[in-house]
Amino acid sequence: MSRHEPVSRRDRPAKPPLSRAVIVDAAMALMEQGEAGRLTMRRLASELDTGPASLYVYVRNITELNALLIDRHLAGLELRWDDGESARECLHRTLDDYMRLLASRPALAQAALVTWPEGPHYLDLLELLLRALRGLGVDTATAGQAVDLLLQVATATAAEGAARASGDAQDLSDLESTLASADPERHPLLVEAGTAAFVAGSPAERTAWVVDVLVNGFLHTEGPDRSRAET
Amino acid sequence: MSRHEPVSRRDRPAKPPLSRAVIVDAAMALMEQGEAGRLTMRRLASELDTGPASLYVYVRNITELNALLIDRHLAGLELRWDDGESARECLHRTLDDYMRLLASRPALAQAALVTWPEGPHYLDLLELLLRALRGLGVDTATAGQAVDLLLQVATATAAEGAARASGDAQDLSDLESTLASADPERHPLLVEAGTAAFVAGSPAERTAWVVDVLVNGFLHTEGPDRSRAET
Repeated sequence: MSRHEPVSRRDRPAKPPLSRAVIVDAAMALMEQGEAGRLTMRRLASELDTGPASLYVYVRNITELNALLIDRHLAGLELRWDDGESARECLHRTLDDYMRLLASRPALAQAALVTWPEGPHYLDLLELLLRALRGLGVDTATAGQAVDLLLQVATATAAEGAARASGDAQDLSDLESTLASADPERHPLLVEAGTAAFVAGSPAERTAWVVDVLVNGFLHTEGPDRSRAET
Repeated sequence: MSRHEPVSRRDRPAKPPLSRAVIVDAAMALMEQGEAGRLTMRRLASELDTGPASLYVYVRNITELNALLIDRHLAGLELRWDDGESARECLHRTLDDYMRLLASRPALAQAALVTWPEGPHYLDLLELLLRALRGLGVDTATAGQAVDLLLQVATATAAEGAARASGDAQDLSDLESTLASADPERHPLLVEAGTAAFVAGSPAERTAWVVDVLVNGFLHTEGPDRSRAET
């Protein structure tokens, strides 16, 4: 047996030089280890054996990092229009997939509320939604804003679902107790409607209905540029 | 002049006993001092000369506290249907007021995404929206879910606006640079639409259009219970 010298930790292979891609890879790896809720620039810098200031050279802030991460996750979705799928089915499927993707990742859902994700897969998502809306007959002047609204609702639903799953939201019994305090004189329609009216159906049924409401609304509303003046 | 004994701070008037109302009053006072972003149970406990554990007897968590605060703020809105106002005008005005109220208070906008606010003014808001929707001819089976969706969009818009105002969001130039990387072969509709299509109009115009889209969608879509099966 040969004698062993103590092995210096400095002998391990050199880390690859920093780049946006290396930073996003490390962030993805952290998220896959279940560190989603705790992803910070500081934590990520420590993982990459560097200081936060070095990361800021490549990624402006945690918001931009999350925007890049969303694009990576979108790579896992089927962002093409399947043969045999109607335009409306394509919209339903795509928005449901997007909503589920974010709903399981609270930090990304939160980030998506205030960022436009960056990268080729996000552009694929926008392009697919524009195509499906055109296929449904939504006019070009409205389509961009329509995509923005569809994604806003899907994102807000995901953020709500993520918060509920993590215990950081109220549950149904809170709404029930709030509505139980409705006064039949002051709030007759509320008393008549009851809690069930506000939460009817499963989340999947609710999302399907919301997409239909929005699409039907786009088809029956003039574009924002020509909409009525502010009242 | 009489001789002065040293004045013990213990001589100051006794604090009123804790209650939900006292806690919410103190939180409102903190918010009015511009402490909105930093409102925590710990900070509030210190303001009330007590420990956080004492607060949790009355208010379950920061989410419930924010739900109570939203109701207090709603007290400042005109939650009645004005004479001479059409049902659609009433919806536009009420949702615009609600959106502006939350947009200037980032912590409340965030909380509203995951909570049902609690209290009589929130019930007034729900009742008014139900009445306006009924006035527009939206059927009773749909109205509760319709109110939920209207408030979700207004809240998400407010949260986005609040994040943007506080610098915790991207600005338009980020979307522009993302769209600038669109590939004319892979993303022809995106290239055709351009950045302007996604952000046309002022926030007030956008909100007015969104409310019209939703209302028109409600009027042209069957209720969620009878909607198509999940695809």
